Amino acid sequence: MGKKNCIVAQSGGPTVAINASLAGVVKGVKDSQVFDTIYGSVNGILGILNNNVINLSEIVANEETLNRLKHTPSMYLGSCRYKLPTVEESPETYAQIFEMFESLNIGAFFYIGGNDSMDTALKLSQYAASIGSDVRVIGVPKTIDNDLCLTDHTPGFGSAAKYIASTILEIAHDTFSYPVPSVTIVEIMGRDAGWLTSASALARNEYNTAPHLIYLPEAPFDTAQFLADVKELLKKQNTVIIAVSEGIRDKNGNYISAASQTTDGFGHSHLSGAGKALENFVTSNIDIKVRSIEINVLQRSGAHISSATDLTESFELGHHAVELAEEGVTGCMVTLKRLSSNPYKVAYGHENVAKIANEIRSVPREWINEAGNDVLPPMYEYLRPLIIGEPDIRYKNGLPDYMDISHLTKA
Amino acid sequence: MGKKNCIVAQSGGPTVAINASLAGVVKGVKDSQVFDTIYGSVNGILGILNNNVINLSEIVANEETLNRLKHTPSMYLGSCRYKLPTVEESPETYAQIFEMFESLNIGAFFYIGGNDSMDTALKLSQYAASIGSDVRVIGVPKTIDNDLCLTDHTPGFGSAAKYIASTILEIAHDTFSYPVPSVTIVEIMGRDAGWLTSASALARNEYNTAPHLIYLPEAPFDTAQFLADVKELLKKQNTVIIAVSEGIRDKNGNYISAASQTTDGFGHSHLSGAGKALENFVTSNIDIKVRSIEINVLQRSGAHISSATDLTESFELGHHAVELAEEGVTGCMVTLKRLSSNPYKVAYGHENVAKIANEIRSVPREWINEAGNDVLPPMYEYLRPLIIGEPDIRYKNGLPDYMDISHLTKA
Repeated sequence: MGKKNCIVAQSGGPTVAINASLAGVVKGVKDSQVFDTIYGSVNGILGILNNNVINLSEIVANEETLNRLKHTPSMYLGSCRYKLPTVEESPETYAQIFEMFESLNIGAFFYIGGNDSMDTALKLSQYAASIGSDVRVIGVPKTIDNDLCLTDHTPGFGSAAKYIASTILEIAHDTFSYPVPSVTIVEIMGRDAGWLTSASALARNEYNTAPHLIYLPEAPFDTAQFLADVKELLKKQNTVIIAVSEGIRDKNGNYISAASQTTDGFGHSHLSGAGKALENFVTSNIDIKVRSIEINVLQRSGAHISSATDLTESFELGHHAVELAEEGVTGCMVTLKRLSSNPYKVAYGHENVAKIANEIRSVPREWINEAGNDVLPPMYEYLRPLIIGEPDIRYKNGLPDYMDISHLTKA
Repeated sequence: MGKKNCIVAQSGGPTVAINASLAGVVKGVKDSQVFDTIYGSVNGILGILNNNVINLSEIVANEETLNRLKHTPSMYLGSCRYKLPTVEESPETYAQIFEMFESLNIGAFFYIGGNDSMDTALKLSQYAASIGSDVRVIGVPKTIDNDLCLTDHTPGFGSAAKYIASTILEIAHDTFSYPVPSVTIVEIMGRDAGWLTSASALARNEYNTAPHLIYLPEAPFDTAQFLADVKELLKKQNTVIIAVSEGIRDKNGNYISAASQTTDGFGHSHLSGAGKALENFVTSNIDIKVRSIEINVLQRSGAHISSATDLTESFELGHHAVELAEEGVTGCMVTLKRLSSNPYKVAYGHENVAKIANEIRSVPREWINEAGNDVLPPMYEYLRPLIIGEPDIRYKNGLPDYMDISHLTKA
């Protein structure tokens, strides 16, 4: 009956490593004795439902293109924010998906994404079992938030951490140039988990003590204590640089951002972020130059300073997913297990996706100091290896030479 | 009487190339047959007034350190925002400066900076002439704003332009991933001149049409027309990405940012930037996902993606300044003259600093389209060569390995 084909999709928020995992899947299928063509579903599972599928075996025809794909940020296949209904809610959706699999002679489906994607992978693998289909369903993790369970860390996190640490270091060089007292607040992504904000600590070195304060969602934020922390530092230094998660909240669980509203020229009000809220708070209470910086989407799309360790692991996880499918494994997510931090060594494994979907992994409270304004040594040991290595980014006309995404930009 | 020494200082806002010029001055003095030691004045001219001077000949002892200095962002010597009084206002200030020159046996003073620094260089050279001092005073330009006269462009601009174009390209990859309608507004530095915002156009390539609208301070901004521009684009595309200068203003010269106020939890109000103002304006008028991104200080301190062309030119300008001083030239600023754009060729020259200080160079109106929402081909031709080339940034522990600035961080 000939070789089976594979299909892959991407979902959730962008990272700079999600295409490295895609490249790993593509390479895995190319290396495979069991599988033939690798198809890509455009805009997550929606591409399968809407018949928007491209042939990645043809598009990624050589090593050069594979390398370019590996270094291109965000989702080459496009994303979706689609919550797959349960089979009880919509049996026809499942029927449609598996008809599509049938028509393309699919033997394995790989879903690269975060929590929601793992939920989709779980549902599809359960459905496959229920109908006796031999289509394997394997999840490949990604999220800059690093909040998935049962994996040491998530693809995309190390590069975002490197972007953040480098940026904080460069902000420190900028800020320390001025011999005037100032407070700089840097807002970092992380609605529920403080992993990314913790990475700001890696900017500290022999000459740089910034960030001087670090606030995570895992420790309740107290505005009065914050103000006291800042004032105390200003007694002994000119420059205070603060890293803060977008998701910091008070002891009642209310986001700090909600305390600040902006009004446009037409009287409408809009919520602003935690960084801006703290900037306004300091401005109102201390007579000093204050600036807030929101790193924004750059931390998840700045591929030009990604971590080679992260990209390599992301690629290998994609490749490993194909190997598992070859062996008949299904209903799992590929994972990273840390064997040692120094020297850094990881092993590639897999876990039942049912144990991962819809769970969140937070920063352990014991990795945060008692005052809730800094991280402790175990966090450094955990983070350090993840940002190591600079990938071989090619440039064209002075800009990174990424994959052509015409199939997305023409929409 | 032996060889004379030199002293150098930096002033104004940071760029990623201002230390490349410093490295050029240091190398120029090391190469010189006329000059001996190169001193650095910490925090601009204030270091000379406050006796805070370091020996750069000793600190930058080898090629490796010179290379690290060349690639370190912001001011290694620290900055100041000090307006030198006129000699009539404060003759004692001038006397103090020239006594310091005398005590260090100074033959030339190099001031790396923007407009204010050129004003200082002018005053000091005039004072030197008036007292018959043979201390040469030479300005070395720098500003990401690219708004100095009589030089084709300014050191620091090309790297900031490269940062902005790369960032817009990465934001495009991020935004085009989502199959949902959205408007993204990117605020770029430039209070008076739109050069930097224009550089966003370089992100356009075979597959990327973003930014779709570009607004500069040089064309009056009309909010109603802006809304019409956005709505028109949304008729034919899902994704609209807009680049806007922080300094856009209406036809009466009022900054658009002033239209938006933020209120903190304590009832104080604060001005927000142009990007946030436009975000709020779109949110209030179009039912669509809207995001504003302020690139902020990263565009002037992100050395990890600087332009090799920019760093080389900045270095050479510093070196050229020393050569001019050797020849007895004074009261000038070193300049770049473009000989051709394709192939790109520049010559190093100098101009009377009196013709440069306190003048501003804006984007020519004829390089902006009639609608005032995009730039025209001459701008591309002008900008393209300036972002070419990737410098050899060294990394340590996964982060750029910059110069130790303990002398600034310990303050």
